[in-house]
Amino acid sequence: MSLEKVLTRIDQKLPDAIGRLQELLRIPSVSTDPAYKGDCDRAADWLVGDLQSIGIDASKRVTPGHPMVVGHVGDSGPHILFYGHYDVQPIDPIDLWDRDPFDPVIEDTPKGRVIRARGASDDKGQLMTFIEACRAWKSVHATLPCRITFFFEGEEESGSPSLVPFLTDNAPELSADIALICDTGLFGASTPAIVTMLRGLLGQEIIITGPDKDLHSGMYGGAAINPVRVLARIIAGLHDDNGVITLPGFYDGVPELSQSVQGQWESLGFDHGTFLGEVGLSEPAGEIGRSALEMIWSRPTCEVNGITGGYTGDGFKTVLPSKASAKISFRLVGTQDPDKIRDAFQAYVRTKLPVDCSVEFIDHGADFASQMQTSHPAFEQARAALSDEWPNPAAFVGCGGSIPVAGHFKGVLGMDAMLIGFAKDDDQIHSPNEKYDVESFHKGIRSWARILDALNWD
Amino acid sequence: MSLEKVLTRIDQKLPDAIGRLQELLRIPSVSTDPAYKGDCDRAADWLVGDLQSIGIDASKRVTPGHPMVVGHVGDSGPHILFYGHYDVQPIDPIDLWDRDPFDPVIEDTPKGRVIRARGASDDKGQLMTFIEACRAWKSVHATLPCRITFFFEGEEESGSPSLVPFLTDNAPELSADIALICDTGLFGASTPAIVTMLRGLLGQEIIITGPDKDLHSGMYGGAAINPVRVLARIIAGLHDDNGVITLPGFYDGVPELSQSVQGQWESLGFDHGTFLGEVGLSEPAGEIGRSALEMIWSRPTCEVNGITGGYTGDGFKTVLPSKASAKISFRLVGTQDPDKIRDAFQAYVRTKLPVDCSVEFIDHGADFASQMQTSHPAFEQARAALSDEWPNPAAFVGCGGSIPVAGHFKGVLGMDAMLIGFAKDDDQIHSPNEKYDVESFHKGIRSWARILDALNWD
Repeated sequence: MSLEKVLTRIDQKLPDAIGRLQELLRIPSVSTDPAYKGDCDRAADWLVGDLQSIGIDASKRVTPGHPMVVGHVGDSGPHILFYGHYDVQPIDPIDLWDRDPFDPVIEDTPKGRVIRARGASDDKGQLMTFIEACRAWKSVHATLPCRITFFFEGEEESGSPSLVPFLTDNAPELSADIALICDTGLFGASTPAIVTMLRGLLGQEIIITGPDKDLHSGMYGGAAINPVRVLARIIAGLHDDNGVITLPGFYDGVPELSQSVQGQWESLGFDHGTFLGEVGLSEPAGEIGRSALEMIWSRPTCEVNGITGGYTGDGFKTVLPSKASAKISFRLVGTQDPDKIRDAFQAYVRTKLPVDCSVEFIDHGADFASQMQTSHPAFEQARAALSDEWPNPAAFVGCGGSIPVAGHFKGVLGMDAMLIGFAKDDDQIHSPNEKYDVESFHKGIRSWARILDALNWD
Repeated sequence: MSLEKVLTRIDQKLPDAIGRLQELLRIPSVSTDPAYKGDCDRAADWLVGDLQSIGIDASKRVTPGHPMVVGHVGDSGPHILFYGHYDVQPIDPIDLWDRDPFDPVIEDTPKGRVIRARGASDDKGQLMTFIEACRAWKSVHATLPCRITFFFEGEEESGSPSLVPFLTDNAPELSADIALICDTGLFGASTPAIVTMLRGLLGQEIIITGPDKDLHSGMYGGAAINPVRVLARIIAGLHDDNGVITLPGFYDGVPELSQSVQGQWESLGFDHGTFLGEVGLSEPAGEIGRSALEMIWSRPTCEVNGITGGYTGDGFKTVLPSKASAKISFRLVGTQDPDKIRDAFQAYVRTKLPVDCSVEFIDHGADFASQMQTSHPAFEQARAALSDEWPNPAAFVGCGGSIPVAGHFKGVLGMDAMLIGFAKDDDQIHSPNEKYDVESFHKGIRSWARILDALNWD
């Protein structure tokens, strides 16, 4: 079947594809906030309808949380499962957005045209690249070159509580030869990337309680324990002066990079000055003696994602707070065991707890890191197809983010995943003013059309 | 003139007095929040009207902030200035209140009847004790035994920005022989107290900025500086392991207690287990080797009153925040210089700032501590009058809170202040469910009637 006709069709119909993406972006499917539950449901319905419109046998599947969308098409050729997520991050701080996050527009910027909205890049724009590639194949050839299972979830930004039970209950239906996941980025602006190494994620919220009520710092200050000060000492003690995480056993299972991977990464010409400069920084702030690429791809981290305690409004209030809390996450690599690290963290916190203080822990996910077997033919076939589309050849890279679904596809369904995406570093995902380049969207669709054409194995 | 008739009148008319206090409590005069500006104005108007209703020449005085209320009565006898504040603390966290903070009710509790509302104790209930004592004197004798200047402000809970300019501009009108301030508490439930030693207060807000936007902790975590971690290290380093504040020169001007004061305080029979037990604590958490009374009355402190950064809503968000901020206050004693300590604090913060981080400081007040000259006859006359009203003799005590107006009366108007109040430790001022005991209110009014009768000097 002719690939060229498909690519031409994609080029001609790009405005229609952008219009469909805008429709999906108008649905505020924030999964972490119960106020948007109905919108998550609407986003799932929209996807079911869109898949059905191109002849895919799609349906919405109820879960205890937000629904899944599953679709099937084809009965011969390589069998792939394509995954994306239709839920998006919260929008706060809303006052830092230049416009309504759920009223997508096409903007001309100095770096090119972009689609600006929450979820434009993460992950609605990305998942639509694959659907649009399938639409173009179907409209040109009335069929697809692969057997495809579509699988979209709506809880990726809120810890995916329903994912593993759903995969487990529907394993025969969802199993394929290999998974394709579109939730990652290019390497720079011109180099497509296939992620073969993903960090895991352990999320822990801690709530420290001292006095049983908020106190006047004049009446009690000096004599009553202050839980904010206790929390600050706990956080300060998690790293030593070299940026090394202090929890006992934390680095068990953290591998050193092989010479060959190290060489491959060095050849990427990654410039930490440019990478950090885009967000107002200059120096890599992690472990002393590690490169910035190691810090974000192959080294584990411990970060505070949120902290609150006492009076945080305008002006000043001399309150001695009863409680202070923090959301803390660990990015994991190699074979680091999230359960053991959770235990070590909780034990450490308890040793730092003075008399009269108590602690409560809330779990927010615990996922191992992933390492793909790149010997499967799909990896080299996809790499060649991507290299045909983009200025630079495609690279196998690491990814600092955690995409736990890759680990679950391996653990529950026994298949590896190829993570291919077209996001750029400046897309501001999880931040105000998120965008997706029109080029990412357009060449992303073309990339998938090429990959569908290239995939071929017994 | 007969004191007994005045006391009888107070007893008979208590329900009317409570009704007036409830009227004042219904006005939500939160000074720190601009949304309540009109309510602060209404509270001032209400006080002007109430003073006028008992024949006092009262008026509202405009300032750049909330208005002052000034009143005059009498032309002979000792000249006193009475001070209170009509503004109240914010009400958050509102979900911890058992009822509407601005719909005052009388509740029967196991410890007696209370008036429950924001400001019931701090300071509307307290200031009304004095007005009600004057009302009773006037209604029984048609005159008052002292020459009195009334002075009420509406910015005490928000740093009193207009106070010093107003005192300076109106010094001849406001000067008196001595000031009476009703904004403090009993010592325990049965021992009235005159505060002769007040801690000062230095308030500083710090805002740390790292990246110029919120980042995805997967993409940047490990390589980008995290301002919450920087802030935690700054806070953790402010105290050593013995609870001693580490800023260079911080303890300059901090006096040791004299043997006699130490003896007087020991005789009070203060039990830290009871004091801390009421708020769910057991051990004094300040400098090792100091008594709890020293910690709250005569030792300086450094506390975090609020902290915030990153995602603080429900669930989890793997954001690496751009900013983190904290409100930090220092209680000062002796001759500690707030300006020098501010400089030392800001210099310390800058030394702890890594590359790529910046800091902004916001000032929230800087007041010296106060020490009264108890040789003025008013002190012993008031002590005797209070001792007649209450089960236990009155004591000269310290106060951990900062009542900067006492320092300004000394500095601008050249007069000492007697701080006499009837609040109890469990009044929950600055906290949800604030209350004032009906006994505090009733015996407070009677105490002022006795003090007005007792004051006598050339």
